[in-house]
Amino acid sequence: MRAQQCVEYEVNLCHGVFDPGNDTLARAGAPVPSGRRCVVTDSTVNRLYGDRMRAYFEAQGIDVRWLVLDPGEENKGIDSVRRLVDAFDEFGLLRRQEPVIAVGGGVVTDIVGFACSLYRRGLPHIKVPTTLIGLVDAAVGAKTGVNHGGHKNRIGTYFPPRCTLLDTTFLATLPDRQISNGMAEILKIALVLDSRLFELLETHGLLLCDERFQGLTSAGAEAADEVLRRAIGGMLAELEPNLWEERLDRLVDYGHTFSPVLEMGALPALLHGEAVAIDMALTTVVSWQRGLLSPVDRDRVLMVMTALALPLGHPAWRADLAERALADAVRHRDGRQRVPLATGIGSALFFDDLTAAEVRAAESFLQTQRTVHA
Amino acid sequence: MRAQQCVEYEVNLCHGVFDPGNDTLARAGAPVPSGRRCVVTDSTVNRLYGDRMRAYFEAQGIDVRWLVLDPGEENKGIDSVRRLVDAFDEFGLLRRQEPVIAVGGGVVTDIVGFACSLYRRGLPHIKVPTTLIGLVDAAVGAKTGVNHGGHKNRIGTYFPPRCTLLDTTFLATLPDRQISNGMAEILKIALVLDSRLFELLETHGLLLCDERFQGLTSAGAEAADEVLRRAIGGMLAELEPNLWEERLDRLVDYGHTFSPVLEMGALPALLHGEAVAIDMALTTVVSWQRGLLSPVDRDRVLMVMTALALPLGHPAWRADLAERALADAVRHRDGRQRVPLATGIGSALFFDDLTAAEVRAAESFLQTQRTVHA
Repeated sequence: MRAQQCVEYEVNLCHGVFDPGNDTLARAGAPVPSGRRCVVTDSTVNRLYGDRMRAYFEAQGIDVRWLVLDPGEENKGIDSVRRLVDAFDEFGLLRRQEPVIAVGGGVVTDIVGFACSLYRRGLPHIKVPTTLIGLVDAAVGAKTGVNHGGHKNRIGTYFPPRCTLLDTTFLATLPDRQISNGMAEILKIALVLDSRLFELLETHGLLLCDERFQGLTSAGAEAADEVLRRAIGGMLAELEPNLWEERLDRLVDYGHTFSPVLEMGALPALLHGEAVAIDMALTTVVSWQRGLLSPVDRDRVLMVMTALALPLGHPAWRADLAERALADAVRHRDGRQRVPLATGIGSALFFDDLTAAEVRAAESFLQTQRTVHA
Repeated sequence: MRAQQCVEYEVNLCHGVFDPGNDTLARAGAPVPSGRRCVVTDSTVNRLYGDRMRAYFEAQGIDVRWLVLDPGEENKGIDSVRRLVDAFDEFGLLRRQEPVIAVGGGVVTDIVGFACSLYRRGLPHIKVPTTLIGLVDAAVGAKTGVNHGGHKNRIGTYFPPRCTLLDTTFLATLPDRQISNGMAEILKIALVLDSRLFELLETHGLLLCDERFQGLTSAGAEAADEVLRRAIGGMLAELEPNLWEERLDRLVDYGHTFSPVLEMGALPALLHGEAVAIDMALTTVVSWQRGLLSPVDRDRVLMVMTALALPLGHPAWRADLAERALADAVRHRDGRQRVPLATGIGSALFFDDLTAAEVRAAESFLQTQRTVHA
């Protein structure tokens, strides 16, 4: 038996996605602009944008069934998926021509993507990320999933949306901490792929955080544009030839070896990007310990992280975490660690021989740094 | 974003799959023959074949974690999937090189395929069907799933096994009713695709049921071989160009318009193939009512069904079932009924204009037939 599947989806910039006269979202992924839609969001987005969203769909003549999830990683479980599936049933969704619309951060878009991939073995859906981490990471890939059994994204699917609409105006209402959260994934792409992006973060990182990517100054506008273009472009270029992860050596796994165990162990104290940041700080120091990274580059990385208000450590880090995380990484990466380590700013290689001891040594080093930077 | 996935899997005949010297199963889907496996089965198969299976894996030097599910369609739900996922976690399965092995009927192979498709977004697995319906239908396709909210296979994925091993020796212990259950899906392929297969069922159907496809006579052996080859070959040929169901006009949906609602409503009174048979009896009569099928061919179909001990009706059939089933079929087939109706033996066309009234008329006609045949 031999069959070929061609997967295509669009990631489009869309300024003012809920402007009543903008029919992009209403037409996205559907043959006709009017009709019915299930729209899924969380209570935070609903509080901030509920009225505008309602007005939008009314103006576009679309009959909406609303589903409002509880926000946060701790609600990203199989029960939320079950709730969506039951709502799809109740609404009587047609299988192909009524795409589900997800409006929210990575938690919402991951849950919706997962539920859509399962219902009747696949419903079309549209993602509208409202957080920075959603814009640059969660909503541009094809991975869906929920946490299970205390493990990050332990169950999920590869199931891209019909399209993702990126509207940076949502970032205006994002709390500082959420801006930093997204910056962590941008920094990841910079570290393993793109030294120019890293330099942009060094030069304009603080301005971008202050302006929330709204381009309030001309320098801020230019930087926001280039940073987002490079971060998203870098991510898509890495995903495209390996969308189903046939290769398990993945540069975009940088910062994702220790962070899943740390994030789940600390839940809900750490945001995803914060856990990724701590992982990146550790592996940056490990790279330096191994002579892969100069002390200058090590400090540049830690300085940028501090400037972006990203943590270099957390009290939830336990002595046995390195062992447990490496063991699970080996299972996840089919018998080998395959840990990407920076070999300079903008490049990385994979290693199979990390020891818990050197990670603990990196942790100790970072503790002294945290005192310095604090 | 544009990516292409190539899916390949094997469906192989494998006589004596649990013969201790036969390393086919031990090597299937894995780079090295030894190692560890999760093996999932149900309590019926475990009772009949547990000792042989244990001896087999011991002889092959494989460390097995056993999972025994409760049998039957009523246990095909999300809780069984959760149980498997938790067991995979506990066992610490490697992501690619330790394929899960499913040994059982369609319920077991559908649940295992589903759980494997979700765990870390995809574990390899091997299917070993032990029922006739598993051999000719459930285990040869790429569909996985479980029932949810009283709906048949409401959630699932397209996720083929690495390979399916077909061993007809399991059929020797199958109850009569389970043989008929599988015959229904063979008859389906015959009716929409293969008049020669239909003639084989007319001529040798009873013999095949009696011999349980074990080839006890030379006529029985020849018929078993050709019937299985045609049924499985016809199924695979239909699936191959449309594995992800991009086209919703599917001949293999024959018998699957009214049966999902009937089967779930009668649970656990009707087996899947029995519900499909009742659906086929109804649509056979509808075809005749519409002048698509001659009275002779109508009677040939009903005669073969009766000979194969398949039901033509069931007390669980309710007056409103036709409406409800057509409404759900329209949602499932994206706004159109797309009901395949036989236009002769071995051919079918799709129709969008079935009425509940003509289905009820067919039901009434069949009630008189049931009296005749009883």
